[in-house]
Amino acid sequence: MSSYDDQSAVSVLGLGPMGRALAAAFLDSGLRTTVWNRTPGRAEELTARGATTAPTAAEAARASALTVVCVVNYDASDAILREEEVTDALKGRTVVNLSADTPGRARDTGAWADQHGVGYLDGAIMTPATTIGTPDAVFLHSGPRELYERHRPVLDALGGTHTHLGEDIGRAAAYDIALLDIFWTAMAGYAHALAVARAEGITGRELAPFAQGIAAILPPLIEQFAADADDGTYSGDLNPITSAASSMAHIVHASEAHGIDASVLRAAEGQARRVIALGHATDGFMRVTDLLTRH
Amino acid sequence: MSSYDDQSAVSVLGLGPMGRALAAAFLDSGLRTTVWNRTPGRAEELTARGATTAPTAAEAARASALTVVCVVNYDASDAILREEEVTDALKGRTVVNLSADTPGRARDTGAWADQHGVGYLDGAIMTPATTIGTPDAVFLHSGPRELYERHRPVLDALGGTHTHLGEDIGRAAAYDIALLDIFWTAMAGYAHALAVARAEGITGRELAPFAQGIAAILPPLIEQFAADADDGTYSGDLNPITSAASSMAHIVHASEAHGIDASVLRAAEGQARRVIALGHATDGFMRVTDLLTRH
Ligand SMILES: NC(=O)c1ccc[n+]([C@@H]2O[C@H](COP(=O)([O-])OP(=O)(O)OC[C@H]3O[C@@H](n4cnc5c(N)ncnc54)[C@H](OP(=O)(O)O)[C@@H]3O)[C@@H](O)[C@H]2O)c1
Ligand SMILES: NC(=O)c1ccc[n+]([C@@H]2O[C@H](COP(=O)([O-])OP(=O)(O)OC[C@H]3O[C@@H](n4cnc5c(N)ncnc54)[C@H](OP(=O)(O)O)[C@@H]3O)[C@@H](O)[C@H]2O)c1
Repeated sequence: MSSYDDQSAVSVLGLGPMGRALAAAFLDSGLRTTVWNRTPGRAEELTARGATTAPTAAEAARASALTVVCVVNYDASDAILREEEVTDALKGRTVVNLSADTPGRARDTGAWADQHGVGYLDGAIMTPATTIGTPDAVFLHSGPRELYERHRPVLDALGGTHTHLGEDIGRAAAYDIALLDIFWTAMAGYAHALAVARAEGITGRELAPFAQGIAAILPPLIEQFAADADDGTYSGDLNPITSAASSMAHIVHASEAHGIDASVLRAAEGQARRVIALGHATDGFMRVTDLLTRH
Repeated sequence: MSSYDDQSAVSVLGLGPMGRALAAAFLDSGLRTTVWNRTPGRAEELTARGATTAPTAAEAARASALTVVCVVNYDASDAILREEEVTDALKGRTVVNLSADTPGRARDTGAWADQHGVGYLDGAIMTPATTIGTPDAVFLHSGPRELYERHRPVLDALGGTHTHLGEDIGRAAAYDIALLDIFWTAMAGYAHALAVARAEGITGRELAPFAQGIAAILPPLIEQFAADADDGTYSGDLNPITSAASSMAHIVHASEAHGIDASVLRAAEGQARRVIALGHATDGFMRVTDLLTRH
């Protein structure tokens, strides 16, 4: 078997929390794993578990048919991959880029890969580093299906579920952007809620079980509101946007009365107020989706 | 049994989606249920199921030992309860106010109730109208424990779990504010994500299963970050705030490149950037909680 098809080895470029978790899962599943990171000294634990540390990214790329890149963003992955020696090393091999960035950046790197004869798949990881190697991990992929199928055995070593979203190389990043939008906005809400609770003498540990209750009501609402957005029906029968705006105003008011910045929710309340002013007072809050869409 | 202690009857003031759900659950459990709404014509379905429609709020209040108020906010509940004839009718009886507003407004109404010899409990409903009467409903209460215990049999007719948070009448509203902060901020993120996905050619129905996956990763993070906030330890070992800020910037960029307003996440990214600038680049995003807290 030529090294270009070898499914028993993998290289990992980038050893932040996520890169280390990926490399550890590859090692756990018995793959020959070569690792590299821009700043040295991040591989000690991995080396102790059997990883080979490559002195350069190019050498890491040469060690395996498949190279997984997981760095902070595409500025970082470009800085690594587009270095001449690395590009040369990758010719005829495959890169799976699990760094997060925009669909545009993914498409740009896809075009670069085509030009240089590098097989290229873009991916996104939708779960925390702690889930890697467990059934809870969620990976999204896009790019040539043939490449995806060929490297599926190695990717499966990461555990969890893998979904190929299509051949458009930007599609995984598009999902990633939308899903992280939900995640980071929710986290901003939670950080703010903890600050407001603290100001009211409620500890995080007291709030947490009820906050988990809020997370528990989301799945059916997510399904319902997705269908509403597709169909353009935003019924407020069960909870009108006027009621939502009133709730948001209370939160902003209570927060600012404690001297706590409420700019995140103020922006959201502003959107609800504009929907109401545009004549949709009896619709639900999710009509904000249409407000945000360019017509 | 005097009408002041009668546990077989209840009155509901306010027949929005939530008030109607509460009245329906009371009827389902066999309680004699009297209803009233400012705007007439909202009670037809309830009357068909056996409810009595009172012509005035005062008459509704006189019909039961316990009156549940559920209107849009405390401006609305004050407009109803502080009307002289209603206040007189409530003397010696109990009001449970399930309208949402700030802790300050709840405390103010608690003081008014004391002055007028009205038993007063404040409550908050943490789940959608569709959950009322089912095990999924979540109610928070605060105020005199003795009153709460006395009316517990009637409240239990609403199904779900009821938690008494303490005698401070403002405590249920304080939890409510913090929990709705999470909910509405997350909903704002979801509406935005659906708009971004749509601009990328991804339907709501395609995104929804993965969005539900995002909701599924929240409970353990909620627990972890609550403890972090209490302890002032915001480790970025698994996901540094620099990585979070980078992700947020991608989302803002991809969104604005589609002409979609990103003010909500821009505000959140700004908080992350300030935490980094204050010297906490290796901490996790949740250190924003401390940034927001007045010191
Ligand atoms: N952590 C998670 O739970 C999680 C979850 C889902 C997705 N992700 C995604 O996974 C990717 C990696 O995340 P992470 O958590 O491991 O940490 P990160 O802080 O996002 O990335 C750290 C890695 O990026 C490298 N890097 C940064 N700038 C570079 C440059 N100009 N050239 C070369 N390398 C550079 C770092 O190298 P140095 O050590 O030399 O600085 C390090 O290897 C990100 O895109 C993130 O959004 C992470
Ligand atoms: N719906 C839900 O899923 C949900 C979930 C949790 C908590 N809640 C909370 O439950 C409460 C009620 O919500 P809702 O969904 O039923 O709808 P809502 O739109 O918040 O409230 C509608 C009710 O408020 C009354 N109202 C408004 N202004 C009034 C005034 N000045 N005087 C007298 N009555 C007034 C309306 O009477 P008219 O018909 O005369 O306008 C109607 O009965 C809110 O505080 C809400 O936050 C609702």
